[in-house]
Amino acid sequence: MDKITIIKVGGKVVEDSESMNALLEQFTRISSHKILVHGGGRTATEMAAKLGIENQLIDGRRITGKSMLEVVTMVYGGLVNKKIVAGLQARGCNAIGLTGADLNLISAVKRPVGDIDYGFVGDIDDVNSREIRMLIDENVVPVVAPLTHDGKGNLLNTNADTIASELASELSNHFNVFLFYCFDKKGVLENPADDSSVIYELNTEKYSQLKLAGTISTGMIPKLDNGFRAKRSGVKEVLITNTENISTGRGTRLI
Amino acid sequence: MDKITIIKVGGKVVEDSESMNALLEQFTRISSHKILVHGGGRTATEMAAKLGIENQLIDGRRITGKSMLEVVTMVYGGLVNKKIVAGLQARGCNAIGLTGADLNLISAVKRPVGDIDYGFVGDIDDVNSREIRMLIDENVVPVVAPLTHDGKGNLLNTNADTIASELASELSNHFNVFLFYCFDKKGVLENPADDSSVIYELNTEKYSQLKLAGTISTGMIPKLDNGFRAKRSGVKEVLITNTENISTGRGTRLI
Repeated sequence: MDKITIIKVGGKVVEDSESMNALLEQFTRISSHKILVHGGGRTATEMAAKLGIENQLIDGRRITGKSMLEVVTMVYGGLVNKKIVAGLQARGCNAIGLTGADLNLISAVKRPVGDIDYGFVGDIDDVNSREIRMLIDENVVPVVAPLTHDGKGNLLNTNADTIASELASELSNHFNVFLFYCFDKKGVLENPADDSSVIYELNTEKYSQLKLAGTISTGMIPKLDNGFRAKRSGVKEVLITNTENISTGRGTRLI
Repeated sequence: MDKITIIKVGGKVVEDSESMNALLEQFTRISSHKILVHGGGRTATEMAAKLGIENQLIDGRRITGKSMLEVVTMVYGGLVNKKIVAGLQARGCNAIGLTGADLNLISAVKRPVGDIDYGFVGDIDDVNSREIRMLIDENVVPVVAPLTHDGKGNLLNTNADTIASELASELSNHFNVFLFYCFDKKGVLENPADDSSVIYELNTEKYSQLKLAGTISTGMIPKLDNGFRAKRSGVKEVLITNTENISTGRGTRLI
């Protein structure tokens, strides 16, 4: 099986032009097949504020009302995605921007209303990799925005970490998948106050201990849950790192 | 050669949910290969106004400053494009949204500053149809937003009528291309006040006469110039009509 590298980058990286350029340079140099999955939450939050749309977050999760859905559709699917695509094309990397609606890549169901109504948020139902694999075989590089669709004409807001892990899991049936979650630290830290205290190998047991000890922060938990799930479903390697270490492969390896 | 139908629809059609649904129904029924090219100027104008960005138009052409480029990138590439894609997927039509940056489909040069500085507006330099033909061969349906790129990382705002005609011209090397410009009338009118006075066949001679007589309005001139150019470069049929007549093929045929 061919190797494919899936890089997930968060908002911070893609929203600052300097770190964005650094990312695009690193990403372009990856010699295997590759996919970039991006966030864009901060830009969406700013745009919503400019438009006078209230930002509602519960436990760090965005409530996506109708107006906010329009904002994330514009920002994730348009502004952030197309800037990345144009930036990669400028570097000779034949990129294509996709949401889960394009090619029916990722279908989802609107999250059922329980204690909280998250609004137009999609929980992934199915990843259909047929056409994206055809593109990959032609050395086209997919750039995936965190939007899915319900098959009834509605777009849905979906967590980018989850999109990366679900895509990685599905593609592990066809490729040796290397999944990198890039954020602003070198990896998961043993001591949150010490950036050099990177845990180089993390198993579920140690992960449970760190969660119990409160060492792992809230934002990291869904990332790691997604990462371990991807690992269990056949993804060859899952790494938590920063963009500088895309080339070295250093960081926290999930085992 | 296979037949391909290229439908260009303007902002009015895609910005009202009722006419949008009617369009998607009509479009889905087209049995040949097909491409949808859309505008979205009105939504961009509204969004710019909400964001406090000044709309500057000279002779109906938008001046695209840096902030306006962000707006059109969001609105054309994100909001309008992805809504259409999700709407087509809901109808079983395997759509994919593209700008000129995706797959390096349409490269352009920023319009040189003459008497007027149009800002980030792109004049098409090259249409690269290799990957889009691969998608078409797989029965994927491209939905194209009116954005191009300069190959240096910048997106550019480009007239949707021109995108449709340039795409049609390039694809005429590989397909029998039928190009439909859809707007709100049944075709080019002999008498602008009488909606039933459709000119069923229009040649360049008659077109010149109508322009001299002032019968053809400003907005129609670039559409027809683009249409005649496409016809000359090998596009099989160019029709000016409304969405209702996509199925009948009635309207103004350029000859």
